[in-house]
Formats: sequence, structure tokens, C-alpha cells
Amino acid sequence: MKKKNQNVNAAIIIIGNEILSGRTQDKNISFISNWLNDNCGISVREVRIIPDLKKIIVKNILELSKNFNYVFTTGGIGPTHDDITAESISKAFKVKYEFHKEAFDILENYYGKSKFNDGRKKMAKMPKGSKLIYNPSSAAPGFICKNVLSLPGVPSILNSMIENCKPYLVKGLKVYSKTLNLFTVESNISKQLGVIQKKYIKDVDIGSYPFFRLGKIGVAIVTRSTSNKKLSIVKRELTNLAKSKKIKILNI
Amino acid sequence: MKKKNQNVNAAIIIIGNEILSGRTQDKNISFISNWLNDNCGISVREVRIIPDLKKIIVKNILELSKNFNYVFTTGGIGPTHDDITAESISKAFKVKYEFHKEAFDILENYYGKSKFNDGRKKMAKMPKGSKLIYNPSSAAPGFICKNVLSLPGVPSILNSMIENCKPYLVKGLKVYSKTLNLFTVESNISKQLGVIQKKYIKDVDIGSYPFFRLGKIGVAIVTRSTSNKKLSIVKRELTNLAKSKKIKILNI
Repeated sequence: MKKKNQNVNAAIIIIGNEILSGRTQDKNISFISNWLNDNCGISVREVRIIPDLKKIIVKNILELSKNFNYVFTTGGIGPTHDDITAESISKAFKVKYEFHKEAFDILENYYGKSKFNDGRKKMAKMPKGSKLIYNPSSAAPGFICKNVLSLPGVPSILNSMIENCKPYLVKGLKVYSKTLNLFTVESNISKQLGVIQKKYIKDVDIGSYPFFRLGKIGVAIVTRSTSNKKLSIVKRELTNLAKSKKIKILNI
Repeated sequence: MKKKNQNVNAAIIIIGNEILSGRTQDKNISFISNWLNDNCGISVREVRIIPDLKKIIVKNILELSKNFNYVFTTGGIGPTHDDITAESISKAFKVKYEFHKEAFDILENYYGKSKFNDGRKKMAKMPKGSKLIYNPSSAAPGFICKNVLSLPGVPSILNSMIENCKPYLVKGLKVYSKTLNLFTVESNISKQLGVIQKKYIKDVDIGSYPFFRLGKIGVAIVTRSTSNKKLSIVKRELTNLAKSKKIKILNI
């Protein structure tokens, strides 16, 4: 287990044909990634979007749970035939796929005994030994099995549950970010930017992203670091670079 | 090489810390996926979002280019230090990373000889033997090397270039889709839905996605198939299921 104040990372697996096909625009990736960094100091280092196929889910769970501290899955934990996340995780970790007593009770209580049909019962089936991630929106809980946390795909429900992941997560170092928006083109500053990146390569990550705003082309220089102090030093150097090239800085 | 009228698939690799960190919401996945299916009959079967790190890009290019007919990359082909896609693909395929004569000429002509600085020249460096994907927005071309097509990350520029990928792609079977929106909850129809899916498992993929619209909870039943005829048959069965359960169908 990781100790506090270390780098802690995570991967996200988006399970769902509706995202792969382009029908639905994913909204969970940026939400989870921002939340993990801001609240737990955990950095998302890889995302995969995969189809609702057991064999493929198993393969990706095994691969990513080995390579990252945590894996978050979204989607596939509802009552229908295409909801196969819990079963697939059980298979991946070779544990029984069975009713979770507490989840069963929560759902039975929510729907009422007479309306607690097989589809609804299915949502209480999980990998043996899972712990629950409570769901204040629609009762059906997510779960954590080993280092894999499974959440639903519907963004509003996922958002309402994310705080309940916190007890299971070891905190890491938060990555701070400062952005400098310059009214110039990348190729005008690329050389000097490379020099500055090289100088601070150990502590600060510098990214350069073109934008189009207020009718003008610009570049957002995004700096990221676990040290706010180092960020300020780099931002000063970047500001000086802009001034020396007479580049207008956009204050937002 | 694949023949026409076969299943043709693709993977997408989104290269960029800005998407992973949650700072920027990706817009390219659904655009590329929809375009490929609608225009080329190519199905996207996996998406990965990875950081701007050469070793990781190389690993993912090798893995996905082996497992899919085509791999699309977005991001990392600009003039700055964090633009390392072309170099990484060269490394993955063990080919020289060098100036592409035609790309060099296009860029020199676009910027003018006196303004054609090193950053801009970098955008003409590619894996040896690459073919160009022309860019009507901002000149800097994308490229195809083996079965990997590299496009920029800025959505408006990517969108303007996508048609120029067509000559390099073998067409496959288009996947058609029909959606039935029902005012019910998933668990009310999950059993019957599973039976229908089983019956048409060979030809039709049925997905079930909860929604919240007009103040009511509903389920979008999305059916997908390369056969429009089969889709109509399944839609009729689904409509009958809704009627038998007195579920209101939302016409949109």
C-alpha cells in the first residue's frame, strides 16, 4: 500500500459501446480525473474505452490493475443483459460472483419486496468480498474489489457517488496547475519553451495548447507540478519570455 | 489488406496530458468514431488516452497497430517540445525520423522562407515513407505510416482534415442504428430485453441506456447491426414488448 505524500496514480476504464460508437459523448473522464487530483492527489495516467465484451473487460482489468494504484470503471453495473462489469471483474480476479448481503438489503428496501424483481436483484451481485460505494441518487451501489472501483455510467449518478470512494483511496500529492494564455502562435515560442521545459524537467511539466478566442489565435501554456513554488518560478520565466517577444498576455 | 464488405475496425489513441488531467474535455473521439462508421463502415473498437511520453506512445502504437486494422492518433504533431507523436511512431516502427520533402515544401510555402523557423520545420519531420494527410486549415499535414494515421489534437483542424484520410482506408460494413426511447426503468424490461438480445445475438447488438428527459426517467434502447432489415425486425419486437407492458414510447 502507498504511503501518504507519494505519487499515486489511477487508470479509468469506460465500459460501453455507446461511447465507442460515438453516439454518446463521454463526460465522466474529465470529472473523475479532476476530482481525483483535487480531492485525493491522485493522477489519472491512462484511460481506455472498451466495448461491453466480457473477454475484453477481463483483459483490461487485469492489465491496468497491475500497472496502476487504482482502476476506476464506469458503466455496465445496471440491471440489463449488457451490464456485465461485476461478472467480468469477478472472472478477472477469479472470485465468486454472488449476492452482496448489504447491497441486497439496500435494494430490497429501496424497491420494496414486491417490486424487487430479478433485474433489480442482479444489481446486488458482485465479486465476493467487495466493499460498497454508496449511491445517494438511485440506491444501487458501486463496489470496490481489490484496487478496482466500479461506478455507473450515468454522469449525474456517478457524480453523486464519487465522494463515497474517498474512504478507500490513499492520498497522494496534488498536482497544481498554472496557465498563461499568450496571443501568439506555438511556432513563435517553441524553441524557448523547449529550453525552459528542459531546465525544469524534474519538477514541472509544460504543455502548449493552441486556442481561438476573442477572434484571435493564441496558445495556452499550461504548467503542472506538485510544487506551487516551482510553478511560480516557471510562470515568471514564461512571462519574461512573452515580454521579450512583445507577446500580449490574455488575463482571464 | 482487407477486402470490401468485411468488418473493418480501428482504434484511437488520444495523446495528451491536457485530456488525461481533465483540463480539456475530448471532442475528437465521438467525431472520429461517427465519421468512420458513417463514411467508411469502419468500427472503432478501442480508445486509449495516454500521456505525452515517448515510451508509452511507442508501446501503445505497437500494441494497437497489431490488433486493429487502423489506428488513429490525435495530438502531438505541432511545433513544441511536447509534440512527440511523429518521433515516437518512427521509433515504434524502427524507421528514420526525417524531413518529408513535400511536407517541407508545403510549410515553407505557407509561412514564407524568412519565417520558416525551426519549430515550423519540425512539423515536416515524420517517419520515413509516410504519406501525407492534407490540412486545409493550417497547412501542417498529418501523415499515415503503416496502418497508423496521425492527426492534430485541435478539433476544428482535425475535422477539416478527416476527409483526406479516406483515400487510405479500405471500406467495411457500415453499422446502422435504431433507437427506441421508452418511458420506463431498465429493471422493468431487463428480463425480456435479455431474451430478445439472445435471439438475435449473431446479427444485432442491443444496448440499454437510462435517460432523464421532459422531467421523466426513461431508457433508450439502442440497436446496432450491419443489416437494416434485421434492425427493423428487432425494433418491431421491442415495440411489441413496450405495448404489452403499457410503456409509453417517446417519439423523437
